[in-house]
Amino acid sequence: MLNKNNKKLYLKVLNIFKKYNLSHKDSGVCASAIINAELVGFSSHGLSRLKMYCDRIKKKLINPKPKFKIKKISQSVRHIDANNSIGFVSADLGIKEAIKIAKKTGVGIVGIKNSGHYGLSSFYAEQAVKKGLVVFCFTNAPPALAPYGAKKSLFGTNPICFGTPVSKGDPFILDTSVSVINRGKIRLAAKIGKKITSGSALDKYGKPTTDPMKALKGVQLPISGFKGSGLAWMVDILSGVMTGASHGGKVKDPFDDFSGPQNIGHLFIALKPNLFVSNYTTRIKENIKNVKKLPKVKGVTEILYPGQNRMKRYKFNMKKNIRIPKSISDDLNNL
Amino acid sequence: MLNKNNKKLYLKVLNIFKKYNLSHKDSGVCASAIINAELVGFSSHGLSRLKMYCDRIKKKLINPKPKFKIKKISQSVRHIDANNSIGFVSADLGIKEAIKIAKKTGVGIVGIKNSGHYGLSSFYAEQAVKKGLVVFCFTNAPPALAPYGAKKSLFGTNPICFGTPVSKGDPFILDTSVSVINRGKIRLAAKIGKKITSGSALDKYGKPTTDPMKALKGVQLPISGFKGSGLAWMVDILSGVMTGASHGGKVKDPFDDFSGPQNIGHLFIALKPNLFVSNYTTRIKENIKNVKKLPKVKGVTEILYPGQNRMKRYKFNMKKNIRIPKSISDDLNNL
Repeated sequence: MLNKNNKKLYLKVLNIFKKYNLSHKDSGVCASAIINAELVGFSSHGLSRLKMYCDRIKKKLINPKPKFKIKKISQSVRHIDANNSIGFVSADLGIKEAIKIAKKTGVGIVGIKNSGHYGLSSFYAEQAVKKGLVVFCFTNAPPALAPYGAKKSLFGTNPICFGTPVSKGDPFILDTSVSVINRGKIRLAAKIGKKITSGSALDKYGKPTTDPMKALKGVQLPISGFKGSGLAWMVDILSGVMTGASHGGKVKDPFDDFSGPQNIGHLFIALKPNLFVSNYTTRIKENIKNVKKLPKVKGVTEILYPGQNRMKRYKFNMKKNIRIPKSISDDLNNL
Repeated sequence: MLNKNNKKLYLKVLNIFKKYNLSHKDSGVCASAIINAELVGFSSHGLSRLKMYCDRIKKKLINPKPKFKIKKISQSVRHIDANNSIGFVSADLGIKEAIKIAKKTGVGIVGIKNSGHYGLSSFYAEQAVKKGLVVFCFTNAPPALAPYGAKKSLFGTNPICFGTPVSKGDPFILDTSVSVINRGKIRLAAKIGKKITSGSALDKYGKPTTDPMKALKGVQLPISGFKGSGLAWMVDILSGVMTGASHGGKVKDPFDDFSGPQNIGHLFIALKPNLFVSNYTTRIKENIKNVKKLPKVKGVTEILYPGQNRMKRYKFNMKKNIRIPKSISDDLNNL
């Protein structure tokens, strides 16, 4: 449960989206995703993007009243044309479809085109995991990352997101961009005037930089060179080439490019964890136990699985009021 | 087509497997996988492992005459109990099943348990790609990689393998371990007395090392810390926890551990690329074209997609005789 102030903030965001013509229900979906991003410690995917979404609605680049077309491809596969919906709403619809189909047939695969930036993949993965499913969430994003060998960006930071239910405790959710640092974090650093880690980006001339403004105009570096570059490429193919969305560097930057809708694509794959075994819960519990009991390197008291740190931050932040920088509080009042 | 000498080598390997009680057909599958590994430049997954396979057959840890049980889980899902088959044969059966189902239903998912080391994932991915399918191949492996925060290895090098057909030219196949360097390469370095890259492994005391012998007794490092560790964990869950195979550090090392069969697990997911769009071929062609035409960093003349380098090596090596180090030629004569 949100505390009183955060609940007020949630309602404020919800009402802003309503003012921008989204339905009450859709405004709630967007506000939930944005408040969740703040609470899990990714302000880069939270309130700092609110003005951008509203600007794009005003410019008719995001459709506040989308007519979704859901096409049944087969027993386990659906295709959604999101009609330039805000990404939160199409991804929410998409993951709910994937969950429904997977519950029924064991496998749910949903491809989405004509969508937009949907915030954090983990937000959708968590929904599937909480319904007891194993899940992949793939999305592409505007150019930020240079393919290995190139000095110009083309791939998005294209996260790989995988989740599984565990027997007890926090959901296991890996949500990792394939860039050394994610674009949202660079953008936030720029907004609050901080430097970024060295080795994470090049400026537009191909020189290393720690200045977030220069990095935003330059390129981010993929993890582990050719490997990270290949993973980013894979995500672009799965979520862009396959779904019918933009791809190959054609996804528009939501902050800088008002020449048309983003046409981002998403691909969700949900699977029943007990497709092959009847005791998945016991098995995943044993798996995690085996890892946690390993001898630790100096300074580490507990080996965490993906998602645990996120939930720690969430639980900690739930007790506090969400911190709103001046520039963002101005946004909130002006919108 | 193999040249005369390589064909002779292929037949020699085939006959060794026959001598160890595999059927003619299964021996051919194994010989093809091993010769392919040599030709694509991964000797680490080729002839250098032949003796190990034979040793394990002799010790009844690999079953040369497995009785596969294929269970239909749903329209698109199969589960295979590989009955401790050599990995090549069970993976070959598994990918062929996945291809067959995907061709029929759009999606083919095959989980395999009680299998063994199957060589290179790309060998199986290529089969699906050549049949016009998008494919994931996941397998786990014996402990080699320390989870982030641990000083003892638990995950295998657990490759992520993804393939897609392209309009023309070489198949797009990303086959990347999530370790900085793969275990096979360390093993080969040890066999031929070479050092390994610094920063890729720790010795058994947790200290950085470039000595492959020490690295084999120590731990390999995952790419990009927590990210690579999470990806390795994901692969262990998909191919081990889900399929009913060993997982969580329990996969046996085929070279050192003769206490029982390996019980490795594999998971293959094959998808029709045109599930959502009718013009996938045009789209993937455009995608690759967009990447290739980017400005290049100094020294790079062409941006390659995953799989191109492998095919370059393959085409180059096809013209030559496979080089056999002394120790391995001794193996070949003794087996």
